Amino acid sequence: MRDPAENAQLALLLEVSGTPKPGNVDRHREYPDLRFEHFLAGAVGARRGLARAAEGAPVGEAFERGVAGMAEQTGGNTQFGALLVLTPLVRAAADNDLSPEGASDVVASTIVDDACAFYRAFDHVDVAVDDPPADAPELDVRRGGDAVDAIRERGLTLADVMTMSADSDGVAAEWTSGFRRSFEAADWLLDGDGPIVRRTSSVFLRLLADEIDTFVVTRNGEDVAAEVTERARAVLDGEEDAESLADELVARDVNPGTTADLTAAALFIALERGLEV
Amino acid sequence: MRDPAENAQLALLLEVSGTPKPGNVDRHREYPDLRFEHFLAGAVGARRGLARAAEGAPVGEAFERGVAGMAEQTGGNTQFGALLVLTPLVRAAADNDLSPEGASDVVASTIVDDACAFYRAFDHVDVAVDDPPADAPELDVRRGGDAVDAIRERGLTLADVMTMSADSDGVAAEWTSGFRRSFEAADWLLDGDGPIVRRTSSVFLRLLADEIDTFVVTRNGEDVAAEVTERARAVLDGEEDAESLADELVARDVNPGTTADLTAAALFIALERGLEV
Repeated sequence: MRDPAENAQLALLLEVSGTPKPGNVDRHREYPDLRFEHFLAGAVGARRGLARAAEGAPVGEAFERGVAGMAEQTGGNTQFGALLVLTPLVRAAADNDLSPEGASDVVASTIVDDACAFYRAFDHVDVAVDDPPADAPELDVRRGGDAVDAIRERGLTLADVMTMSADSDGVAAEWTSGFRRSFEAADWLLDGDGPIVRRTSSVFLRLLADEIDTFVVTRNGEDVAAEVTERARAVLDGEEDAESLADELVARDVNPGTTADLTAAALFIALERGLEV
Repeated sequence: MRDPAENAQLALLLEVSGTPKPGNVDRHREYPDLRFEHFLAGAVGARRGLARAAEGAPVGEAFERGVAGMAEQTGGNTQFGALLVLTPLVRAAADNDLSPEGASDVVASTIVDDACAFYRAFDHVDVAVDDPPADAPELDVRRGGDAVDAIRERGLTLADVMTMSADSDGVAAEWTSGFRRSFEAADWLLDGDGPIVRRTSSVFLRLLADEIDTFVVTRNGEDVAAEVTERARAVLDGEEDAESLADELVARDVNPGTTADLTAAALFIALERGLEV
């Protein structure tokens, strides 16, 4: 029997293998400097942090360790956001309460030390992020561990930090909403049939059609994000071909990474609930 | 830093992702009932056994545990042979002597209990194997744990069992030859350049061109095995296209699995020696 850390590692691997996932690295597509093999090494390296979460370690510490391990490859950021959404879910599963309520309890239990560890995670790898609030430049996550004093001074927990970002970051929004979309998409996976790489593609497209991807907003702007969501809807309506869209978005370097992160979370929940590989 | 168990897990993942690997499941090809996702789950499940080897557990026990974990997916045998060649190499790496001599020392140190655990590993998964020697039907590995009494009666170590099979099984031949081909192919990987999935393909083809694949002999007969090796040579000579050959061999269900096993071993050795992902 796979334990929660192993199911989370498998979720990372299945997510990147799901194809087509328009704009993302998948089994058949990659970027010249961010290749499939980097994701494999990232998932291998992330496991120790996931195992710490499964052992009951503080969520921030487990997340930072997962990111440090993930970063031990030359492609840069592979699945930072996926680890951010997976880590509290792994902890909830280890507490035998992998539910919106159980995951929200994990979020509510975070303390200032978790927020500090979250900031330190940014020291391990470059992540595309939004600018900080204009009135709080000292909380810029790009400062990494240098922001720890500001965090402590304000007494911010990791839950507080996520609340600050929830409007602009779809992963943070999961933290503040009981991981609503992740649990919903897990049901889609469990209700589907056929090879999991295809179900993963289908769930990714449904998530993308439902809401704009905040990572695309950050990197490519709101108009592109809106376009991508429109076109995911067109794929679901049979008006556009998913493979062609995938080729096009990779060529344009438009990468709906938040949607991929939620897909990984959904895979984890589904695996824990009996999705058979 | 990845430890030996993590490098072995990564080797399993890189091996199956290497493409084209004519006849094998790879990043772009699979069989209807033996899919890429089964290999991902197999590699996740195998890690605990590999970790036992890295911790110094007996090789037989570590191997059996790796196989039991690998088998926790619905595709059946994914990388049994790869685990058989990797397990003593992981142990040698953990002993800080990943060399032909160090690996041979691990082989020489095996005892009867290791042979019994090896046989029990066949209880976890169906593996295509040759018939046993005519004079020793009680040593048929397909008997699994039922053969343990016969093993104990004869006082066979796991090294003895591998010696019995070395003529007909390319993985067993590695055990009795200081893992000669695995170490040689690791040098090819380290001397190569470009994405590792392509280097893996190239090393697979060189190994296949050098010697007939014993798994193909077992499943498809000597003529087919000879043909496959001839055609791998033709690919290396630029006379045949590797992608077309890969499509054809998958369609014919001709699967050079032993060559894939040695490729995984070579990837592990290369990773331990600094191959950068």
